[in-house]
Amino acid sequence: MSALEKFFCPGSVAVVGASRTPGKAGHTIVRNILEFGFRGDIYPVNPGCEEILGLRSYASIGEVPGPVDLAIGVLPRRQTLDLITECAHAGVRSLIIPAAGFSDVGAEGRELEREVMEAARAAGIRVMGPNSIGTVCTGCGIATPIVTLDRMRPGGVSLFGQTGMLASGFARWIQTSERFGINKIACLGNKADLDENDMLEYLATDDTTRVIGFYTEGVSNGRRFAEALRAAAGAKPVLVLKSGRTAGGRKAIASHTGALAGSDEVYSGLIEQCGARRVADFEELFDCAKALEWQPLPAGDGVGIVSITGLGCVLAADSASRYGLRFPRPAPRTVEAMRGALPDWVPASNPADIWAAIEARGPKEAYGLVASALADDPDVHSLVAIFTLIPESSLDVMELFGPLAESHPEKPLAAVLMSGDALMYAEWKRTLEGNGIPAYHSPERALRALGAMRALNRKGMGAADAAPATQPARSITPPLGSRDVR
Amino acid sequence: MSALEKFFCPGSVAVVGASRTPGKAGHTIVRNILEFGFRGDIYPVNPGCEEILGLRSYASIGEVPGPVDLAIGVLPRRQTLDLITECAHAGVRSLIIPAAGFSDVGAEGRELEREVMEAARAAGIRVMGPNSIGTVCTGCGIATPIVTLDRMRPGGVSLFGQTGMLASGFARWIQTSERFGINKIACLGNKADLDENDMLEYLATDDTTRVIGFYTEGVSNGRRFAEALRAAAGAKPVLVLKSGRTAGGRKAIASHTGALAGSDEVYSGLIEQCGARRVADFEELFDCAKALEWQPLPAGDGVGIVSITGLGCVLAADSASRYGLRFPRPAPRTVEAMRGALPDWVPASNPADIWAAIEARGPKEAYGLVASALADDPDVHSLVAIFTLIPESSLDVMELFGPLAESHPEKPLAAVLMSGDALMYAEWKRTLEGNGIPAYHSPERALRALGAMRALNRKGMGAADAAPATQPARSITPPLGSRDVR
Repeated sequence: MSALEKFFCPGSVAVVGASRTPGKAGHTIVRNILEFGFRGDIYPVNPGCEEILGLRSYASIGEVPGPVDLAIGVLPRRQTLDLITECAHAGVRSLIIPAAGFSDVGAEGRELEREVMEAARAAGIRVMGPNSIGTVCTGCGIATPIVTLDRMRPGGVSLFGQTGMLASGFARWIQTSERFGINKIACLGNKADLDENDMLEYLATDDTTRVIGFYTEGVSNGRRFAEALRAAAGAKPVLVLKSGRTAGGRKAIASHTGALAGSDEVYSGLIEQCGARRVADFEELFDCAKALEWQPLPAGDGVGIVSITGLGCVLAADSASRYGLRFPRPAPRTVEAMRGALPDWVPASNPADIWAAIEARGPKEAYGLVASALADDPDVHSLVAIFTLIPESSLDVMELFGPLAESHPEKPLAAVLMSGDALMYAEWKRTLEGNGIPAYHSPERALRALGAMRALNRKGMGAADAAPATQPARSITPPLGSRDVR
Repeated sequence: MSALEKFFCPGSVAVVGASRTPGKAGHTIVRNILEFGFRGDIYPVNPGCEEILGLRSYASIGEVPGPVDLAIGVLPRRQTLDLITECAHAGVRSLIIPAAGFSDVGAEGRELEREVMEAARAAGIRVMGPNSIGTVCTGCGIATPIVTLDRMRPGGVSLFGQTGMLASGFARWIQTSERFGINKIACLGNKADLDENDMLEYLATDDTTRVIGFYTEGVSNGRRFAEALRAAAGAKPVLVLKSGRTAGGRKAIASHTGALAGSDEVYSGLIEQCGARRVADFEELFDCAKALEWQPLPAGDGVGIVSITGLGCVLAADSASRYGLRFPRPAPRTVEAMRGALPDWVPASNPADIWAAIEARGPKEAYGLVASALADDPDVHSLVAIFTLIPESSLDVMELFGPLAESHPEKPLAAVLMSGDALMYAEWKRTLEGNGIPAYHSPERALRALGAMRALNRKGMGAADAAPATQPARSITPPLGSRDVR
């Protein structure tokens, strides 16, 4: 069994330094674990009180009555060595250390980290951190961050990285804006023990994880990393966000987590060779994650576009080649079907500018006829509909996408909400993504996500190979999709 | 006087093809002009009715009692030639042609456009279009689009381009999400007559326009374009969004507006040589426009960053050099002031990771002390504060930015709302931008905007030269900033 299993699915968890005071980190962790519905035993440890959030509190980890699968030590960094000793005596073998001030702040911290890790290794304790806010697992209801977190929408995407943002700010953003379902999150901090390689090896064989995304500032064991990445990317789609692209960035990384960032080009080549996909920033990471979570991988590089505006067609065309995609010329049958919507003087092309058709027949019929004509074209492998959120183009967007998804479950669909009213934008995005249709703010972003999916498929890697077993052709109603948070 | 003056500030306007039917383009235009508070005469022209939206309607443009400074002909493309004849007889010299189906759709349309333009030239009529939804001018209350538009926040930014999106979808997006103030908008369509060059020449000397942004798919007269761009960029900041970066994009452009896109590299070099700034997409165009509208140009390339998360520091550092910016090491006095907020073990560096300070002193004091220390540093020329919208870091954000803006009116400020709750994001963005502080969704986007401002200043071009006359050091309360739409 992977050492990581206990960090995500422990049978019992102790919070050392738990607190009765709302706002304190030691209070928040207990609250988060309760909020996420953890079904195992929770042991707050604090010699100064007897009960925390309705749970009995213990004076020391040694007094906890049952076995402790996972401990979180919410203590000042100077008490970490004592914590290791206590955990060793109590038989705890998995420990999260949230405290910062170790290798993340210079020579003195590095020395302290070395001592802590020496003691942990001697006691057989696996450590996440220091400077780590730990893990989230929606399946077993664990959530160890030191900042409050609302229960998250469960799903197939697992994320990890040095940064605590994945289980704090980004977790909230995903929950309230991006809406894809989370399986597991790990914030690795200084990676004094558990690191990217452990995570990749663990998630590669984790059946409930269908998409992996991770952020790294640099890895320490290049050979093991390549092996772990190749194995994971062979099993499911893997998205890699690597910072340290510039010298300035690498310097900042050194002072932040003490990691050596390494040559950026080497990483790019390695990631591609392993069959994973490098993304440029968190926006792209989430854009791709949701498409991979909700939509099938495209069988080819042909994209059909139906757009309310010629500008949408131009911007899409301008970025297609950058993402390895093309717009196949509509087949004769497709042209015939498109002609049913378009005024005589408007050419039936792809990308299709349907403004004149909207003026003539209204948005519902114009989008419906042209989109289904393109989706029926055998050379079209994915379909994008571009909208502008103005009163003149209002329609029930799932009346368009629902039938398309049903008639072509094998073709990924995406929506572009290119501009218009911000309130309509939020409402359309919620409707679309609540139904598993990824919605992007520009044609470029939609094509970037489709290009990533195409690349993951072309390599013969990713979920395509294992589609029947681990990924349904399309989850048109994603888990909890109808239970939108706001 | 520029031929364009009558398109933005006419004393009277006729809508040929005006309609009593809500939803029809000929109805919408009249409605828009009323909505924007136009103070001149409005003449609906429609032989089939006597009154439209409370205005007397005329049977033909020849029967209109007063002079017509500007006509908009909302007619099928086949009636355009007759319209030119009528306008010529009635003495109309400025005409907007919204109809599409000219050079935008192929050979037959090109021939029709040629005939129309020959007749217009013979009659001395200047044309915007065909395939143009015309202009917006918040100053005189003109708004000619064929889709409904709500009255816009007035300000100093003027935008133009082929696309009608600028006065429809993007106009709504700016109004409801981006919030910078609009001076003028022109949608040039097929540019059979008036084009980018006319617009640049006009806006260069238009005193109320303080920032110019435009989208182009290609220009016809390179020499005149270079001259016009250089003159405009010498007078105020100019942002250029040019599509047709790829062969696929250029092909799409040819079928959309019939323009020849030209070599992309030539454009990049030309734009830079002229002292303007090329932007990559509409997101960057708006990101930069708002910063230029609200904030002063930075005197140098030194950026100070205060961030709730080390990740924000790394991402900022990673993109700084790409945008020609650097993070100066804090001066001894700055370090001393920062130390007042930071725990002993946290280094006083720039970018400054203040999470430990927030834990120790709360967000208000931590952000306040570190940000003002950095802003006081003479080597820091602009300041960025990075937030994560989680309950633990809640603060009154204008209590932070207000004093900074007051003590350093010469230094541009920006906020990064990096992640967190989507509702908090919308609220913070509204508060910040209602007070003239641009808010971005990632460190990369904030630095990209500051980099553009720095480049515009370094070239000795843009508003810096003319700052006292045309641009206040900072409009901390932008026009209508407190009158947020939603």
